[in-house]
Amino acid sequence: MSVLSFNPIGIIKTPYIDTAPYQPIEAEDQEFYLELEPHYIDGLRELDSFAYIYVVYFIDRLTTSPQMTVSPPWAAGQQIGLFASRSPLRPNPIGLSVVKIKKIIANRVYTSGLDVFDNTPLLDIKPYIKDLDSKPEANNGWVDAAADSDHLALHIQGIPHDY
Amino acid sequence: MSVLSFNPIGIIKTPYIDTAPYQPIEAEDQEFYLELEPHYIDGLRELDSFAYIYVVYFIDRLTTSPQMTVSPPWAAGQQIGLFASRSPLRPNPIGLSVVKIKKIIANRVYTSGLDVFDNTPLLDIKPYIKDLDSKPEANNGWVDAAADSDHLALHIQGIPHDY
Repeated sequence: MSVLSFNPIGIIKTPYIDTAPYQPIEAEDQEFYLELEPHYIDGLRELDSFAYIYVVYFIDRLTTSPQMTVSPPWAAGQQIGLFASRSPLRPNPIGLSVVKIKKIIANRVYTSGLDVFDNTPLLDIKPYIKDLDSKPEANNGWVDAAADSDHLALHIQGIPHDY
Repeated sequence: MSVLSFNPIGIIKTPYIDTAPYQPIEAEDQEFYLELEPHYIDGLRELDSFAYIYVVYFIDRLTTSPQMTVSPPWAAGQQIGLFASRSPLRPNPIGLSVVKIKKIIANRVYTSGLDVFDNTPLLDIKPYIKDLDSKPEANNGWVDAAADSDHLALHIQGIPHDY
């Protein structure tokens, strides 16, 4: 199939220069924001009427090729299909995060924690619409059956812990 | 910024050859499935442990350029920022849908309704993880305040109706 091309609409600013957590752990003094190129500013109108948004980005710090199965942390070596995981190493390294909007100032959208490196290329912002996107009858799939599912759940929910 | 490139991992098969609904309305005899290129088949392991998945695709039937504000249907001419809408006309035409998994047979993932055209290029599949992605405290933003929000809600939820 043909190659598709995309142009970033901005960058994501985070405190993570060299290392990033598995899931965002937000300290009091840390800032996370999406900085759009100025000509996209009108596209943000009414965005702050939403509590949550999807952030779509390009995972640009990968140095190895994706494997079709992965062994997630705290899953005791269990082999999971790549598409059943949220591993960043994917054939198309498109990242997706659900975050809270804190405030919008000009071309900056301040959000809750985002587990991406500073200056990550931003591809899209979409409103997270409760009636469309919140699925109370969803499940956690293999995660709930993983060897240390309680520990994995802390990471997935971004809950700080010491072990 | 530099141009980023992606290669489809497969295609999406739907009944929509020429026209597609605003949101999926699934008839009894209609099939929707993701057909991955065969070398990605191992990537599907354990995917069927999830009730829902994210489908990420390239919106490839666009003939006009995106505008930074849009006037959604049933919103009485209200101007909404593009990034506060789910309009397919975006700077990076990446589509995102949450669907149910029905069954997986070899390289085909059968799903609930998807409002995309037949043969849409598939970019990624990610598990929808309840603890990470379901946000009961989310809202519907400007949609709830729209002129005909009840009608718009039917479309957003994919509920068939005659008007």
